[in-house]
Amino acid sequence: MHTKETQNVMQVLNDYRCEGCRETQQQNGHNKEVRNVSDDDDADVCTFKPIGLIKTAFNEKRAVPRQASLATALLSRIDISPKTFNNPGHSLEGLNNFSHLWIIYYFHRNPNHAKAKVAPPRLGGERVGVFSTRSPHRPCPIGLSLVQLDRVEDSKVYFLGTDMVDGTPVLDIKPYIPQYDVPVNLKEAEFLNSREAPDGEETSLLDRNPATSKVQPMPNVAVPNWVLNSSSLNVIFNANAESQLQELQIEKVRIVAMNSIVDVLKADPRSVYLRTKYGSQIYTFQLGDHTVTCKFDDQNTTVTVLQVRDVINFEEGVGECSYSNE
Amino acid sequence: MHTKETQNVMQVLNDYRCEGCRETQQQNGHNKEVRNVSDDDDADVCTFKPIGLIKTAFNEKRAVPRQASLATALLSRIDISPKTFNNPGHSLEGLNNFSHLWIIYYFHRNPNHAKAKVAPPRLGGERVGVFSTRSPHRPCPIGLSLVQLDRVEDSKVYFLGTDMVDGTPVLDIKPYIPQYDVPVNLKEAEFLNSREAPDGEETSLLDRNPATSKVQPMPNVAVPNWVLNSSSLNVIFNANAESQLQELQIEKVRIVAMNSIVDVLKADPRSVYLRTKYGSQIYTFQLGDHTVTCKFDDQNTTVTVLQVRDVINFEEGVGECSYSNE
Repeated sequence: MHTKETQNVMQVLNDYRCEGCRETQQQNGHNKEVRNVSDDDDADVCTFKPIGLIKTAFNEKRAVPRQASLATALLSRIDISPKTFNNPGHSLEGLNNFSHLWIIYYFHRNPNHAKAKVAPPRLGGERVGVFSTRSPHRPCPIGLSLVQLDRVEDSKVYFLGTDMVDGTPVLDIKPYIPQYDVPVNLKEAEFLNSREAPDGEETSLLDRNPATSKVQPMPNVAVPNWVLNSSSLNVIFNANAESQLQELQIEKVRIVAMNSIVDVLKADPRSVYLRTKYGSQIYTFQLGDHTVTCKFDDQNTTVTVLQVRDVINFEEGVGECSYSNE
Repeated sequence: MHTKETQNVMQVLNDYRCEGCRETQQQNGHNKEVRNVSDDDDADVCTFKPIGLIKTAFNEKRAVPRQASLATALLSRIDISPKTFNNPGHSLEGLNNFSHLWIIYYFHRNPNHAKAKVAPPRLGGERVGVFSTRSPHRPCPIGLSLVQLDRVEDSKVYFLGTDMVDGTPVLDIKPYIPQYDVPVNLKEAEFLNSREAPDGEETSLLDRNPATSKVQPMPNVAVPNWVLNSSSLNVIFNANAESQLQELQIEKVRIVAMNSIVDVLKADPRSVYLRTKYGSQIYTFQLGDHTVTCKFDDQNTTVTVLQVRDVINFEEGVGECSYSNE
């Protein structure tokens, strides 16, 4: 019984080991027997301990924007885990000198999906290779979002632009650096390469971009048409929803709440299935402290917000990082 | 003995489980006892099975460019593992409609480094928070590189722009989409939000960017000065190196090899330690099939290539994806 259990556990453990860990472990001289359970090198995996969690207004996957840039009114935050570093705040030192960040995170609500082709909403049901899409259903369920830094406070990073569900584990934060992250026009780069600098002169592509410059390397970028064939809906608040929003006492909160609802709806959060099967229908979703009910009118590419109700939160802490600007 | 072993292995196994896996496993009803070994939720980890490996000209970490955009002459490739999908090629369908890709990969030569502050080369020894840098030494050793797609062949992706060591495990490939991956000028976005579209008209930020457009959302981006304080070196080939390069029979290969060497050297591949401790010194590195020897002249910010020798490869397959354009 014990032997069988041990073998079983060791098999799973071995499947979880990545090459680096195996080497380290072998050097350390223990658990050598684990290596012998399976010789299948392709079973190697990488393991990462998340550095923290994301707090957002989206308690459910429903209506989470498909890209962070589609919801720039939404303020969210990353809490660096106190287990990551003795002084988590130290790891964020200097981050406030950047305006934008990459967040690399784990699609923890979509784990271990591995189909070679997926049907992105904008392709209307047609399937393409998963690596040609930004679908969250991918063999390594890793998300990549560009967000705008709002502020850093101790071990917390507040950012604008949200396409993550509340509680998403964060794997990494990297500063956005346009010199690395915008495709350089190759012709321009080649021209600069071919120019010989006089002795002692430091030349660089980067020299032309002072820190505050708005001029970036001009990309020469191609994307397929289906990526661009995204229409945005016209969002209308009816009288009832308007008056419910008016009940929010602080004007700033009211504006942010309204903008957040517009952000979510204008990009059409419905799946292809919902849109084609039910057409113009009532749709309800949660956004932080509120439940929003709306009706799509697909003929007029319009969505009307009918109701904005308070949600009573039973779980402690839920909604503490809503879309309010505090 | 068995009990102790089992407990030990289960402890490690439990440390490796991420929340998603635990839930899945609990639903499956086996290995329930694993959960009870430790109640430390912060020990949760995410596990990913790499989708393939990157073949590059860099057999060693030495002289690997710090960013993919610094080495656009280097042709490398991703081999999607046959274990990822039954038909790996299917997962790449449609990818050739994009000009650029994100590669998300595992820094397998820098695993499990977790210091809150690091000293990036350009800061000359000063330390900043690790999340304010692109250092490969980070708590989750995950790399993110923007590369230019060269072509897709079956289950292989050829790309230009290389900052990975040969054999790097790939976690994900995502298409580069400027509408998501370039910070939108928020003022512009707000203006478009505030404009009400007439009924039936589809408006979108994206509409203004047809597939072949070179006009992108104008970023309003800030980065600290140290990121921009990167000088590039003047690269000279001496007569010996010139004649050695001339021995490469195919002109195209010769040009690519030369450009690759220039790419690597002009960005100064040396560490702060090497540069400050030894100053103007001889430096040797491998680039695919060649061993390159050069000498830095720091006073004149110049580096002279002295020798380009052939490497005899003992390992099968090494160098098969060199910087040649084939």
